Amino acid sequence: MPDVHARRRAALREALGEADAALVTRLVNVRYLTGFTGSNGALLVTRDAEVLATDGRYIEQSKRQAPDVERAIVGAPATALAERAKNDGVTSLAFESHDVTVDLFEALGRVGPSLTRLKRAVESLRAVKDDEEIALLREACAVADRAFARLLPSLRPGRTEKEVGRELEALMLEEGGDGPSFETIVASGPNSAVPHHRPTERVLEAGEFVKLDFGALYRGYHSDMTRTVVLGKAADWQREVYALVASAQAAGRAALGVGAVAGDVDKAARDVIDAAGHGDDYTHSLGHGVGLEIHEAPTLRVGATDTLADRTPVTVEPGVYLAGRGGVRIEDTLVVRAGADPELLTTTTKDLLEL
Amino acid sequence: MPDVHARRRAALREALGEADAALVTRLVNVRYLTGFTGSNGALLVTRDAEVLATDGRYIEQSKRQAPDVERAIVGAPATALAERAKNDGVTSLAFESHDVTVDLFEALGRVGPSLTRLKRAVESLRAVKDDEEIALLREACAVADRAFARLLPSLRPGRTEKEVGRELEALMLEEGGDGPSFETIVASGPNSAVPHHRPTERVLEAGEFVKLDFGALYRGYHSDMTRTVVLGKAADWQREVYALVASAQAAGRAALGVGAVAGDVDKAARDVIDAAGHGDDYTHSLGHGVGLEIHEAPTLRVGATDTLADRTPVTVEPGVYLAGRGGVRIEDTLVVRAGADPELLTTTTKDLLEL
Repeated sequence: MPDVHARRRAALREALGEADAALVTRLVNVRYLTGFTGSNGALLVTRDAEVLATDGRYIEQSKRQAPDVERAIVGAPATALAERAKNDGVTSLAFESHDVTVDLFEALGRVGPSLTRLKRAVESLRAVKDDEEIALLREACAVADRAFARLLPSLRPGRTEKEVGRELEALMLEEGGDGPSFETIVASGPNSAVPHHRPTERVLEAGEFVKLDFGALYRGYHSDMTRTVVLGKAADWQREVYALVASAQAAGRAALGVGAVAGDVDKAARDVIDAAGHGDDYTHSLGHGVGLEIHEAPTLRVGATDTLADRTPVTVEPGVYLAGRGGVRIEDTLVVRAGADPELLTTTTKDLLEL
Repeated sequence: MPDVHARRRAALREALGEADAALVTRLVNVRYLTGFTGSNGALLVTRDAEVLATDGRYIEQSKRQAPDVERAIVGAPATALAERAKNDGVTSLAFESHDVTVDLFEALGRVGPSLTRLKRAVESLRAVKDDEEIALLREACAVADRAFARLLPSLRPGRTEKEVGRELEALMLEEGGDGPSFETIVASGPNSAVPHHRPTERVLEAGEFVKLDFGALYRGYHSDMTRTVVLGKAADWQREVYALVASAQAAGRAALGVGAVAGDVDKAARDVIDAAGHGDDYTHSLGHGVGLEIHEAPTLRVGATDTLADRTPVTVEPGVYLAGRGGVRIEDTLVVRAGADPELLTTTTKDLLEL
């Protein structure tokens, strides 16, 4: 996708402000701007040059993935690019202070051009996705949906959380995913009341909640979804908690739209849970952007003031957690769309499944 | 393993030098010193306190994984711990300048105690493994060995590199691994001449080399091995390259031992390849330490001066890459042992397999 990357670099150039050039060191940002996926590299974008630096392991890969930028093979990419910037007459080089370590900052300072802050300029660009990215996210979500559908018949009492997690991850690979997009959560019974539980040897039992929070990685893009099921017939308390979370989640989805304030979207879902007296049992934010990273801008949380733009994918994932008993979280990934309802990427049913 | 972690923290305290306390922010180091595996956290080790800080998502997990340290639940772990250090009378706080970003450094500077360099003190401790770690590495390697044995029958012409890679990753999960320890490399035919090739849709053909570089993650520990096979009968040139790399690899393994200089071990293998006139076709270092990270100290490379200590696991992985034709790499993970031969953790045969 060379023209995609060139377009993104042009957008970064627009965002440079006073600086002559940007030194991009965060690898996920380098990938976004060039397509290069190696584990070591940096990108220099000046007013008239674009140079990707990496080490000797990535000679072929960098040529293939980033054919439309100049490439430099060096031992220390970031400092080599600062040197290059200096030689090209750059006087003000914007760097990523949220990524550059103290050691690297000192090394850059010894090289040359005066350093200014790029801030999270690339992350801001990344919040709004282009069509190529949305297509990849859509497939990442579809992989997870298909894997979940295939998992359901074997989601039964007697299996352990770890077994279920591994089967789900294997199914995502079979369905075309490149791996899990984060550590799969399988939380049964009382464990379902732990928001970020890691799978254990605990055996699933009849009558329990099982909460599964998982996603597939697909060509660098992360899907993210949560479903909570009951093994067998749901008890009344389980139905009540489930219905509450489902209605909060629906309220959150309904609040999405171009221009919506992130904090207001969070509030739309939170108010439903608060009104039912379970505010203290909902201990996290409503959602987050998703793309090349599993968590990225924007964050849907209390008080967040940023507004949502067209083509911004976000998760909507409220939960209610009753310590010692069990919990429910329901999570979709959706894309905010101008002049239309948000596009739902995770299409698995949100009806309460009694397995 | 609480006492294991307490022992490691005691070793760090010994390494503090002039500083009153260490602020550990690199997450893999926090894990090493406490057992905590969350995605956000930091550890303060003073002369008489040990405080793990993390955020609200990890209340339960931090309690379970790190029961023997004081825990603080806060929004910004590192700065909260600097505050705590100041309140406890710490005047000189050693921080990890290879991990702390410029933004975080400024935030720490605003809080208080004067900042000094911890350098890579924790990484140095981590190079030498305790018995608990070696047991986990042994199992990580065994998972990869078992998965490779099960893969062999389906390593046949007609399959794609990606299919093979996915099957191998699925088999590692089935064998008890927690995931691949890095991006699995499956490189066929001319692609085998690319040291760090990523699997493509290329179809495997008869008579070709297939190079597989892969590993399993097991409870945080990474295995790493490479085998190169031929699909069908090997041609003479393939036998020759294979025999050369195998003898270089044997020379590298033979040079391992307590007190051996890392650069000399690299040289022992490199000399074999140089003498055969293929020095220019071997473009990387001989090996690296492995543990909680796939690449860690020590590095076996040209000119490295550190000496190997008892209980240090390293990889030994020379290769010869003939552009356009094919390449061979053979890699084991071994543990350097005092008064004994190195312990071989990757036990799959290194005979040339003609499948």
